[in-house]
Amino acid sequence: MFENRNKKRTEISELGEFGLIDHLASRIQLHHPETIKGVGDDAAVIDTGANLTLISKDLLLEDIHFDLSYHPLKHLGYKAIAVNLSDIYAMNGIPKQVIVGLGLSSRFPLEAIEELYEGMILACNKYKVDFVGGDTTSSKQGLILSVTVVGEVKKEHVVYRGPAAESDLLCVSGDLGAAYAGLLILEREKTVFKADPNMQPDLHGKDYLLERFLKPEPREDVIQLLQKLNIKPTAMIDVSDGLASEIKHICKHSELGCTVYEDKIPIDQLTYDTALDFNMDPTLYALNGGEDYELLFTIKQADFIKLKELDGISVIGHMADKNSGINLVTKSGPVVEIKAQGWDHLKESE
Amino acid sequence: MFENRNKKRTEISELGEFGLIDHLASRIQLHHPETIKGVGDDAAVIDTGANLTLISKDLLLEDIHFDLSYHPLKHLGYKAIAVNLSDIYAMNGIPKQVIVGLGLSSRFPLEAIEELYEGMILACNKYKVDFVGGDTTSSKQGLILSVTVVGEVKKEHVVYRGPAAESDLLCVSGDLGAAYAGLLILEREKTVFKADPNMQPDLHGKDYLLERFLKPEPREDVIQLLQKLNIKPTAMIDVSDGLASEIKHICKHSELGCTVYEDKIPIDQLTYDTALDFNMDPTLYALNGGEDYELLFTIKQADFIKLKELDGISVIGHMADKNSGINLVTKSGPVVEIKAQGWDHLKESE
Repeated sequence: MFENRNKKRTEISELGEFGLIDHLASRIQLHHPETIKGVGDDAAVIDTGANLTLISKDLLLEDIHFDLSYHPLKHLGYKAIAVNLSDIYAMNGIPKQVIVGLGLSSRFPLEAIEELYEGMILACNKYKVDFVGGDTTSSKQGLILSVTVVGEVKKEHVVYRGPAAESDLLCVSGDLGAAYAGLLILEREKTVFKADPNMQPDLHGKDYLLERFLKPEPREDVIQLLQKLNIKPTAMIDVSDGLASEIKHICKHSELGCTVYEDKIPIDQLTYDTALDFNMDPTLYALNGGEDYELLFTIKQADFIKLKELDGISVIGHMADKNSGINLVTKSGPVVEIKAQGWDHLKESE
Repeated sequence: MFENRNKKRTEISELGEFGLIDHLASRIQLHHPETIKGVGDDAAVIDTGANLTLISKDLLLEDIHFDLSYHPLKHLGYKAIAVNLSDIYAMNGIPKQVIVGLGLSSRFPLEAIEELYEGMILACNKYKVDFVGGDTTSSKQGLILSVTVVGEVKKEHVVYRGPAAESDLLCVSGDLGAAYAGLLILEREKTVFKADPNMQPDLHGKDYLLERFLKPEPREDVIQLLQKLNIKPTAMIDVSDGLASEIKHICKHSELGCTVYEDKIPIDQLTYDTALDFNMDPTLYALNGGEDYELLFTIKQADFIKLKELDGISVIGHMADKNSGINLVTKSGPVVEIKAQGWDHLKESE
């Protein structure tokens, strides 16, 4: 009744998520010297004396971030924790605690919530993270999951999104595009099912893709490996919005350009074949699919020798002068500019 | 399509929020010795070396926790931060950082979000708290606010919900029931407005009650005062669900009973008169209204002398043997058992 509906109206979608964050961040004023990093990395960084404390949070909403018609609750619980841990690994840190806010509509019985918790606790136990509480409330709007993760990192170990140096090598763990392929398969089968509820979903042989989408594993092992090899990345980020978007973040924080070689981008054979089945370019799955939760990082050239014999880490390009731009050397030869599409949920909502 | 709809179904409302938390908490296993306190207090407590780090979060959902038809966005932003800071003060700590997750439907233009942020940043600046980021996403379901606050406390200063000792005095800051009176007035005017949109809301002379509801102030000053007087409470909690519910928490964590004197419960004259206007007992506003964000705490009897000359702190009763129960000595004489009704959003949603 007190809402003024005659004011100027600028649609959020005109700015997008990153535009909105930049717009609002400019008004923030910090009061404490121990706040090392606020808005703008995978996690906030607080100097708590001996070490740095890392804090990150994600808000996951039904029908925006997940679809319960094909996402089992136990897997969803696991994923909600996993993607938050990934943010802490992306700072080269160790996640220690999670706090979960849960909004529940009356559609969910206790048994459903138990399944969700089972998945969350499974992830917590696997990655040795303490579940330390949260807030549970009813919701009129389906399931709402808000996860906050707290991590720790030695001051000399923390890695930000930049700055990388001009000659640094760009590396990525695992393979890319599989989660997006898994999502597309599930969406296709949902459409088939809606048209004819007697049809059984055809997911045969696609286990790897479905698991990558439904139950991703954050790359704790990569962090441990880098430490064992005595390699400290110069920049790092996790691949949540797609390779293209993450490369742009590293370039922005480094004030550099980058050259990526298409034939070096790791794509699993099954992802590749599935993309072709859908008449799409597999490289686009890797660049713009997202939700891979792999780690994208830069290393000094001198560290290359330590990495090159390793399975599971691909060197996909190198940093370059800012003026040269962010480019992809395609398999067929031409060099094209990489544009980030990412998963901008704010723009998607138009 | 994979949801099994034939399973056993137990309604969450049968357990309520606290029942659900207890039920789920029993499955949690902690891995890190630095996790001092998990589920079950106003904030989680982590030993970060020199000090303790406190973390608390709240999920605020449109039409469950707030009604934008009478809650201006700037006030809502302020309140969302304020109520989280209150959790840190309730641990005798100092809030340092906040992280905010925001879900926005396309109904909200940039200008609305700016108002919301203006309120949040106002509260951050007033209480010297650093806004360090978060997550912004679109929502299909109105406005969703998820606030995480990080605080700090010296190890020797932290105060939990208990245990208090049997003879400790029960104290509360400020006055109670005003926010609930404010809410009822706004709800009444909304009903009038719905029936006839030409009617102007009649809020004359009710400023104090409206402000208590729309823009509460967390009691940083009480924490500072107690420290100045060299009083460390033996137990403390903030009054978010109503005095009755909070007293029960302190009794539970202390394994004690409690005696409260009705005539000692601080109720502002305007709250009192408004309750009578609504044909309700003012004491019930204080006991079950909630959202006061005052501090309820226990002190050793020996500390009474330091407090007694102070305005703004009321001694309302004392802890007692567990077997004597949790009782209210009414103004008219009879002693009645205090039952917590609180604001159980999970039960409300039935």
